[in-house]
Amino acid sequence: MEHFIKAPERGIIEELLQWAKEAKQNPYSNKSLGENKTLGLVFLNPSLRTRMSTQKAAFNLGMNVMVLNMGQEAWALETKEGVVMDGDKAEHAKEAIAVMGQYCDILGVRSFPSLQDREADYKEEVIELFLRYAQKPIISLESATRHPLQSLADLLTIEELTPDWKPKIVLTWAPHIRALPQAVPNSFAEWVLKAGHDLTITHPRGYELSEEFTKGASIEYDQQKALQEADIVYVKNWSSYHEYGQILTRDPEWMLTQDKWAVTANASVMHCLPVRRNLVLADDILDSKASVVIQQAGNREFAAQAALKHLLLENYGF
Amino acid sequence: MEHFIKAPERGIIEELLQWAKEAKQNPYSNKSLGENKTLGLVFLNPSLRTRMSTQKAAFNLGMNVMVLNMGQEAWALETKEGVVMDGDKAEHAKEAIAVMGQYCDILGVRSFPSLQDREADYKEEVIELFLRYAQKPIISLESATRHPLQSLADLLTIEELTPDWKPKIVLTWAPHIRALPQAVPNSFAEWVLKAGHDLTITHPRGYELSEEFTKGASIEYDQQKALQEADIVYVKNWSSYHEYGQILTRDPEWMLTQDKWAVTANASVMHCLPVRRNLVLADDILDSKASVVIQQAGNREFAAQAALKHLLLENYGF
Amino acid sequence: MEHFIKAPERGIIEELLQWAKEAKQNPYSNKSLGENKTLGLVFLNPSLRTRMSTQKAAFNLGMNVMVLNMGQEAWALETKEGVVMDGDKAEHAKEAIAVMGQYCDILGVRSFPSLQDREADYKEEVIELFLRYAQKPIISLESATRHPLQSLADLLTIEELTPDWKPKIVLTWAPHIRALPQAVPNSFAEWVLKAGHDLTITHPRGYELSEEFTKGASIEYDQQKALQEADIVYVKNWSSYHEYGQILTRDPEWMLTQDKWAVTANASVMHCLPVRRNLVLADDILDSKASVVIQQAGNREFAAQAALKHLLLENYGF
Repeated sequence: MEHFIKAPERGIIEELLQWAKEAKQNPYSNKSLGENKTLGLVFLNPSLRTRMSTQKAAFNLGMNVMVLNMGQEAWALETKEGVVMDGDKAEHAKEAIAVMGQYCDILGVRSFPSLQDREADYKEEVIELFLRYAQKPIISLESATRHPLQSLADLLTIEELTPDWKPKIVLTWAPHIRALPQAVPNSFAEWVLKAGHDLTITHPRGYELSEEFTKGASIEYDQQKALQEADIVYVKNWSSYHEYGQILTRDPEWMLTQDKWAVTANASVMHCLPVRRNLVLADDILDSKASVVIQQAGNREFAAQAALKHLLLENYGF
Repeated sequence: MEHFIKAPERGIIEELLQWAKEAKQNPYSNKSLGENKTLGLVFLNPSLRTRMSTQKAAFNLGMNVMVLNMGQEAWALETKEGVVMDGDKAEHAKEAIAVMGQYCDILGVRSFPSLQDREADYKEEVIELFLRYAQKPIISLESATRHPLQSLADLLTIEELTPDWKPKIVLTWAPHIRALPQAVPNSFAEWVLKAGHDLTITHPRGYELSEEFTKGASIEYDQQKALQEADIVYVKNWSSYHEYGQILTRDPEWMLTQDKWAVTANASVMHCLPVRRNLVLADDILDSKASVVIQQAGNREFAAQAALKHLLLENYGF
Repeated sequence: MEHFIKAPERGIIEELLQWAKEAKQNPYSNKSLGENKTLGLVFLNPSLRTRMSTQKAAFNLGMNVMVLNMGQEAWALETKEGVVMDGDKAEHAKEAIAVMGQYCDILGVRSFPSLQDREADYKEEVIELFLRYAQKPIISLESATRHPLQSLADLLTIEELTPDWKPKIVLTWAPHIRALPQAVPNSFAEWVLKAGHDLTITHPRGYELSEEFTKGASIEYDQQKALQEADIVYVKNWSSYHEYGQILTRDPEWMLTQDKWAVTANASVMHCLPVRRNLVLADDILDSKASVVIQQAGNREFAAQAALKHLLLENYGF
């Protein structure tokens, strides 16, 4: 069974990008593909872009959609083995997932990391339970360590911005008041590198991401050096991987501003959103022509459509 | 771009009423109009009638629908300019609205007033942000100062009740334990007057609505005088506009009962619902034949269908 | 008007089972039946299986679906007559239900019992309000005392497991830490007995269900005796009917394990889910081939489809 939970091999990435571009040109041309197919979207955490763009993509393909806000509309789930379930969790993930799988042809799930227990988070316990028990194709709506629908939209955006040459791509850490997951930067690095791009990552010492995702990227601790001659600057906060889930600094000097951007090659600035203005990214960038965050978010629809098309064809195709 | 956020000119109102009547006769006759069109419904506040009637109307027109309960399913939004977003709001309305607009062909939004800051409320800050950033047609699901889908349904109901003559229409204030918005009475006055009706408004002193909406209506502080020979009595509580958001009285004498109704010309009694029984309206009215509140609520579906048809034709039409 | 709120007569049960089997073979063969028909699903309590399986069933029939989480997305409802509504409930059930009925062709409702007031619960006050005020066919998504969609799925599962002979069916009480409704065991007994099966019920003294549902069943207080030679064992906790809503014991000896199951005739073990592992049912049963809980939950889709088809044909049929 084919799933969509991490970066596939380069050939598949290229096919997905091609399909995403076609979907953007002609969103309804595959509308019979999803006929009588139902997508279930299970949210263990909040969502705006993923929730709406994935629904829209499914509509474009002629699918039916069911949304379930776990915990809010149903029950909290137990995930451990062998437990006597006499606490506040009314159902084991084994049953809940197997059941949800029965009602859906593709099952999407969003599940953030705890940021408490690195081993558990990086084992992707929740996604693994879905893979084991749903018996249906799984599409990640952001998991503990990856956000593949975001990364595919990011690649599509980069291709739209620099169709004719290899851009210099820089991923830069930014400050934040909360401890955020590493899923977006992990996944961005994974997809960009697999797609054959070069990648420079810049962040304060101690914010190194897992090498599982960044092997092949250059690390540069001096943000200004990293930004020089950049064509694409991806801004994102994340909490420390090595001192797991910790905030090591909130140094405002790492926020991207027009001044710092000036050394780039008129770079396009990306962010996955939601973004906290004047904490992560300055107004003078977000409100300038350099910012492509809305185009990037708009591409989420077509990335999701390509991923769903892939799952429909691979799992239910002719 | 054409939106649906307040009373349009009289010619459009008449066309909308005509379409609503046609939709009520034959709900599915425009089902191809909404094909491959997606309606996003964004709720910053609770909703029953608006939520369900607007979805149903969209189904009648063949549209797809996505519902988003902001705050509950996604993030709280910042609306101020230039703020350092280091508080509890994870996303600025600028980005969130622009993004939602990308996934929808028509975007509906419900946003109640604060009742704290009259200037901000009457500037319709949230609706204005949607108009500025969504880049898509906006349909108001009740804003700080207006509820146009309700008012169009109200006019349709009045036309059904008094098709052959000009009714005497009275809008009467009623007591309530909470401070409620002025949106429904504002909007009712705006639509009724623009449609060419006469309107008498009765309320305790201090409850005068903004003249922006009521210019042309007669104000009568004696409820019994106002009710005499009325054909239509619209009952509704609102908080004070002049002492903004305040409850000046809870005088139970203002609750409409059979006794007080007796001076009318066998008037039909309207209320937008939800209504608190025996506080706003007495059981002996609500359970009598005079009450048309269910017919009125039923008409919400056809008002929404007319409004959506208008937006589809004006913005995506032939 | 035809509703689906309790076990119908045997002939109808057999027809529903036949339709459920056909739906399982060919889910989309009645897709024109629900065209231009809208199902409203109103949840006063959480739901996973019912929520998803009923939506899926409606999609299979070509219906549109609207989901409303009452209280969360709309307002808390008053249900008493003649009250001055000056508390926290903003709308009376009379109005809310009548209004929801206007926007839907079939209205589903989930409403759990209080477990405080037996008379009120067993009068099915909420369902009765829907029957009285909705003016549309009602489908129960689990009411205070019954869960007919579950029971129809249970019967379908039993027929799949024992198509060629009359099974020995045992319903056994199991311990739990919370006071749970009697709806599932009531309804199971009602449907199984009406369908012409024999039924043995085993539970600690004091846990007798209402005879309204169990008349014709054998009661056996010794669980091991009851289980001997059983073909089907239905495990479920419920709180006391006679000492209403009370937990009389949590005796872990009543939890079904492999050891206790050994005296059965290789019985299939059923549970409606959600199930608390190692409190209600041991891992060694749930993870064995004896457990059919996922098949049973999967059948919820086809039971719902049969019930909806029944309501569409009876109320809107040719």
